[in-house]
Amino acid sequence: SGLVHVKNPHLDSMEEDVLYHLDLGTKTHNLPAMFGDIKFVCVGGSPNRMRAFAQFMHRELGLAGDGEDVADICAGSDRYAMYRAGPVLSISHGMGIPSISIMLHELIKLLHHAKCRDVTIIRIGTSGGLGIKAGSVVITDTAVDSSFQPRFEQVVLDDVVVRSTELDKDLAEELLACSRDITDFPTLIGHTMCTYDFYEGQGRLDGALCSFSSEKKLEYLRRAYDAGVRNIEMESTAFAALCGLCGLKGESCHLHLL
Amino acid sequence: SGLVHVKNPHLDSMEEDVLYHLDLGTKTHNLPAMFGDIKFVCVGGSPNRMRAFAQFMHRELGLAGDGEDVADICAGSDRYAMYRAGPVLSISHGMGIPSISIMLHELIKLLHHAKCRDVTIIRIGTSGGLGIKAGSVVITDTAVDSSFQPRFEQVVLDDVVVRSTELDKDLAEELLACSRDITDFPTLIGHTMCTYDFYEGQGRLDGALCSFSSEKKLEYLRRAYDAGVRNIEMESTAFAALCGLCGLKGESCHLHLL
Repeated sequence: SGLVHVKNPHLDSMEEDVLYHLDLGTKTHNLPAMFGDIKFVCVGGSPNRMRAFAQFMHRELGLAGDGEDVADICAGSDRYAMYRAGPVLSISHGMGIPSISIMLHELIKLLHHAKCRDVTIIRIGTSGGLGIKAGSVVITDTAVDSSFQPRFEQVVLDDVVVRSTELDKDLAEELLACSRDITDFPTLIGHTMCTYDFYEGQGRLDGALCSFSSEKKLEYLRRAYDAGVRNIEMESTAFAALCGLCGLKGESCHLHLL
Repeated sequence: SGLVHVKNPHLDSMEEDVLYHLDLGTKTHNLPAMFGDIKFVCVGGSPNRMRAFAQFMHRELGLAGDGEDVADICAGSDRYAMYRAGPVLSISHGMGIPSISIMLHELIKLLHHAKCRDVTIIRIGTSGGLGIKAGSVVITDTAVDSSFQPRFEQVVLDDVVVRSTELDKDLAEELLACSRDITDFPTLIGHTMCTYDFYEGQGRLDGALCSFSSEKKLEYLRRAYDAGVRNIEMESTAFAALCGLCGLKGESCHLHLL
């Protein structure tokens, strides 16, 4: 049917669903009217960047007006920012798995309540590259954890549930095909490693704490490279797991900045 | 000596330390001049709330001017917001352990470079209460994980290191003593449980995914209560572990909103 699935039997019996961190709700807002025609959702960490992306999409789609005064749909909350340009939603998710997870739970319910169909979601983020040129874009085929395994371990109450982190391979190929017209950014498909920590978790030598040597760091990153990892960030396994379970066609592309 | 410790032998040999997510650095800013007299750091998730807190502190401390136009010291980054009012820094950290960890690594280095002494750090956040009245404040004695254990498991490269999550007991008592003058907010000392997930991890029945029954949820929360947990949030174990290791006198107080 192309609809977004929520997998929660309790939702049907709730009189109202408050999407608290988005400052939206089923009683306070007409979600089908506001969002029913959304076909693409692009998400990234930084609110300013996601506003700039909505402005860019506004121009690219040739929509009326200059798009500079695009309004933050979640202005009543300062947890996330959300903008729209035609059928495209652009939302910030902050940094790390817990932060993106809260946003995705509420976004998935939003798309469900709005009866959206055939929605594609793409994370457009930054990441650290591994053995690739600065300015490269990595399109993720599979998100892996810090042991290079394609899994996301979700704690449900005090149980650990293991979830798959595969992304949509056709969409990855489609995005790679698009990239062929853009010569400024070398683009490749590879595994993306997702960590819980930016400093000690990603082998950085410049955190407040660092207990490993430069050699140990390089040895770890080399093993990651040999396992197919081409970049490292902090959201992709949770993103892949949640989108996969809820029937959202998802991809994740990352710009390697430095 | 009261100085903040960094535990990273690599830092001494670095020519420049860029505190990337704070938009500050040792070459671009005179950190001792800007921050050397800081004695208190208060952190919380939301940037607007931390601005409001800085404005409140400005008034409470009787500083010159009305404090309404307090400037965001990290304005060049939209990852975190930072304000100061006299000797008090007020910083946002976003939601979840990965997000607060990045901020704390860079904050600890900031306090180290600025040669600050005897700094007290307090997380002032919101949380869900357990068996307590809405509007209560919980002062954390120990932060525990989702199995009610006083530990923080930090992934360092691909090893797991277990860290202590005890907070400063004297500071907890001091804060409790302060609360006796404020009758609007019942205040207590208890364990704070820290989870990686807001919906499935905290027993919420209204996420996009929910695989447990209301009974299973209540049984889990009852076990948490019996283990001494009085509230649940998403940052305290990492906060306690990092502050403890770096010699920052730390406490965490949470308002139970609903």
